[in-house]
Amino acid sequence: EDTWSVAGKTFRSRLIVGTGKYKDFAQNAAALEASGAEIVTVAVRRVNVSDRNAPMLTDFIDPKKITYLPNTAGCFTAEDAIRTLRLAREAGGWDLVKLEVLGEARSLYPDMVETLRATEILANEGFKPMVYCVDDPIAAKRLEDAGAVAIMPLGAPIGSGLGIQNRITIRLIVEGAGVPVLVDAGVGTASDAAVAMELGCDGVLMNTAIAEAKDPVMMAGAMKAAVEAGRLAWRAGRMGVRRYADPSSPLAGLI
Amino acid sequence: EDTWSVAGKTFRSRLIVGTGKYKDFAQNAAALEASGAEIVTVAVRRVNVSDRNAPMLTDFIDPKKITYLPNTAGCFTAEDAIRTLRLAREAGGWDLVKLEVLGEARSLYPDMVETLRATEILANEGFKPMVYCVDDPIAAKRLEDAGAVAIMPLGAPIGSGLGIQNRITIRLIVEGAGVPVLVDAGVGTASDAAVAMELGCDGVLMNTAIAEAKDPVMMAGAMKAAVEAGRLAWRAGRMGVRRYADPSSPLAGLI
Amino acid sequence: EDTWSVAGKTFRSRLIVGTGKYKDFAQNAAALEASGAEIVTVAVRRVNVSDRNAPMLTDFIDPKKITYLPNTAGCFTAEDAIRTLRLAREAGGWDLVKLEVLGEARSLYPDMVETLRATEILANEGFKPMVYCVDDPIAAKRLEDAGAVAIMPLGAPIGSGLGIQNRITIRLIVEGAGVPVLVDAGVGTASDAAVAMELGCDGVLMNTAIAEAKDPVMMAGAMKAAVEAGRLAWRAGRMGVRRYADPSSPLAGLI
Amino acid sequence: EDTWSVAGKTFRSRLIVGTGKYKDFAQNAAALEASGAEIVTVAVRRVNVSDRNAPMLTDFIDPKKITYLPNTAGCFTAEDAIRTLRLAREAGGWDLVKLEVLGEARSLYPDMVETLRATEILANEGFKPMVYCVDDPIAAKRLEDAGAVAIMPLGAPIGSGLGIQNRITIRLIVEGAGVPVLVDAGVGTASDAAVAMELGCDGVLMNTAIAEAKDPVMMAGAMKAAVEAGRLAWRAGRMGVRRYADPSSPLAGLI
Repeated sequence: EDTWSVAGKTFRSRLIVGTGKYKDFAQNAAALEASGAEIVTVAVRRVNVSDRNAPMLTDFIDPKKITYLPNTAGCFTAEDAIRTLRLAREAGGWDLVKLEVLGEARSLYPDMVETLRATEILANEGFKPMVYCVDDPIAAKRLEDAGAVAIMPLGAPIGSGLGIQNRITIRLIVEGAGVPVLVDAGVGTASDAAVAMELGCDGVLMNTAIAEAKDPVMMAGAMKAAVEAGRLAWRAGRMGVRRYADPSSPLAGLI
Repeated sequence: EDTWSVAGKTFRSRLIVGTGKYKDFAQNAAALEASGAEIVTVAVRRVNVSDRNAPMLTDFIDPKKITYLPNTAGCFTAEDAIRTLRLAREAGGWDLVKLEVLGEARSLYPDMVETLRATEILANEGFKPMVYCVDDPIAAKRLEDAGAVAIMPLGAPIGSGLGIQNRITIRLIVEGAGVPVLVDAGVGTASDAAVAMELGCDGVLMNTAIAEAKDPVMMAGAMKAAVEAGRLAWRAGRMGVRRYADPSSPLAGLI
Repeated sequence: EDTWSVAGKTFRSRLIVGTGKYKDFAQNAAALEASGAEIVTVAVRRVNVSDRNAPMLTDFIDPKKITYLPNTAGCFTAEDAIRTLRLAREAGGWDLVKLEVLGEARSLYPDMVETLRATEILANEGFKPMVYCVDDPIAAKRLEDAGAVAIMPLGAPIGSGLGIQNRITIRLIVEGAGVPVLVDAGVGTASDAAVAMELGCDGVLMNTAIAEAKDPVMMAGAMKAAVEAGRLAWRAGRMGVRRYADPSSPLAGLI
Repeated sequence: EDTWSVAGKTFRSRLIVGTGKYKDFAQNAAALEASGAEIVTVAVRRVNVSDRNAPMLTDFIDPKKITYLPNTAGCFTAEDAIRTLRLAREAGGWDLVKLEVLGEARSLYPDMVETLRATEILANEGFKPMVYCVDDPIAAKRLEDAGAVAIMPLGAPIGSGLGIQNRITIRLIVEGAGVPVLVDAGVGTASDAAVAMELGCDGVLMNTAIAEAKDPVMMAGAMKAAVEAGRLAWRAGRMGVRRYADPSSPLAGLI
């Protein structure tokens, strides 16, 4: 069976989905189910903790069945991110977390200096950080050395739907990594997810591509199939590329 | 249920696979099964008719369960192609056929003058020709007017594995067509097949991408998933593309 | 000196510019001068012949210094195009002409059946037709056989500015052609024109990319430089592509 | 006149060329002249200082006419790079320098942690560092804050000739920068250089694309024209992109 593991946990699905931008929790849960994802990521800062009467995500997505991956969306410094994750750990016991430390609101690009610093501190505190980062092979190695349990390079800016802009860098990261690599951000449609997997990534994380599709639940199914397709194609070993044609039907044995 | 129809027949699978370049018929049959394809295309000129003791494709792929689509691979004139298909009809009763009339051995590009002429003649003789063609929206309309029951533009040269080179033309053909459009030729890996479907095509035909993968049967499974992924993504309606980032996790409700 | 010839005439500039969409004839003439073009193409159907008092293009662009290339923009049948060019020849003696026969108003794609037919007739009547066509290597050979003195494949739809969509087909046409090949349509900015030349084309024709730039005269200068750059790069023979890095500064002789 | 300035010096040429991989100094000098470059970059570690009888670059390229830009090619730590540049300053008085701190020999990607640290130290010592870096908009801002006088993101791995892989990131860097941005590394042919300039960069640095062309001197001329073309196109303001066609020759005034 084709599985992958992160921080000692093993998963069959290679798709991680988000919890932002959905119409409501019911739609989110339906999309999650259609996606086959076993991990869902949640922005700690967005979690409703004040209004006990409002609906809660956990009423719709069972934390006993689905792994919750707290993330630090909206944090612009290492301290913010670390404080956020400490709160999450105190509240729910999570130590497998997704770290993102943003550099600016415009592009939502990560700040790699703060990200690296936060990774070190979190790892020292016993967290298992999966880390959102730029598609920089050297930074990826530094994150791994600092204790990142997974490398999560962006394929394109968060929420852009532009698809993977630089296949060379993603490939270099995969070749150099000793921990799982998952493309995080930039996927817009199914083929983008397949491309990520065909580059040898261990998985893909996405939110907007599903939540902002006209039919999010159907798109979740598309992404499930796309990740599987890309993974199988990677494992199967694609044909070489030829510039000129080569007949599929060699002409020996003509009638 | 999401099906498509050509010449009065309805299919669930949107993937058509070939019968060239496999190690043997057993591998071909296994790949076909993994692909989920309901149609298999066969080069009439390659069919063994002289040696009754040699193995036959029909011993491995049951024509009662799988639709055989005879093709004219290796024909360089309308006359050659027409003669080939008449033989096929006499031998097996097929009238749903795949026409290809090649213009040169180097690129295996179709000769559209001969292709159009052959389409007219075949349609007048009661054939239902699915037609391999260049990615030319006007030629596609002419083929349809001449009696083509499906338009099959190349995505890249046959056997090249280069992927779809021109998304604009494939999209223009799809928008203008009144019959099914299937990308035929050029697919190299799973994401290429997904792209074809995301452009709104009704299906994809491929041979080399599966037969020349290191593991053809696994790649057939990849292609099955990729075509389904692309189709679902098309139906689901993808998100718009944004140049700049947009947070998946809006920062309302901060802790 | 690096020149090219068509129908017995020799030119230094490899850029052909149009005469549509400019603010006025003065701007058109200024852009032409900045472009360095020696050939300007004019839609016969747009030429003002009724109002003798209105300004005329020939007052701004001297036909004794610049080669006028009449074209058949707006013609949708071979007959229309042929009639238009006969009128042009009677009026001005031109036999070097640009043939385009459009297939539909939406995409302005050529109708290759009509285009091929018109090419034959025009060549038989002594015209020297440079022919707008799809990027189809086989059709290109047929046009050449029918008497086309230059092959002018589109890089993308007319007026789209999308750049060259399919480098494989342009390259195949160049490799197979015995007459000059010029990309006609699709160029949006300078690098697009350079790409056309780097593929080995003999020249580029454009109109909208210059006329609809914010500063058409400056863009004309950009295109002049881009065509020269691409031509020189083609002649110089580019470096090979390497997937991984190779130091420009080998480390022998360290301090 | 269209000029650019870095560290108080003003230049007309926007092309910087290297001094590696040429057959000999004479070819290097001829290529430099054909390129029109006013700046040449030299790997300090490669400079011959031991053999007084061997030919010297300065005999071929006059430091009084051409600005020498010492670089730290081959340095893998901040300390190495700083020491190298201190030697260069002591030897020749240069303070305008190009800093590169590599992360690994395989991809020659920069190590941004070391690069940022070296930039700070060098700026504090009065150097004016132009800094080779990954295409990361946040890192670019940090470099600028640390004292970089120019940001030099890679377009693709050094010596790869792959062209600019990620236009989004280069564009984001240009939009955010308060100092000149020059693409450094990745250019393979003329159109790649034009693309860099069309994204709004202030210049381009290249070595292999010229030195490894079949005819380096002719390619240097191609690059000169390409940089000018891209710059003019950027200033002129390109046409918008349209998906569907738009006739250059509106059909008013038909014959």
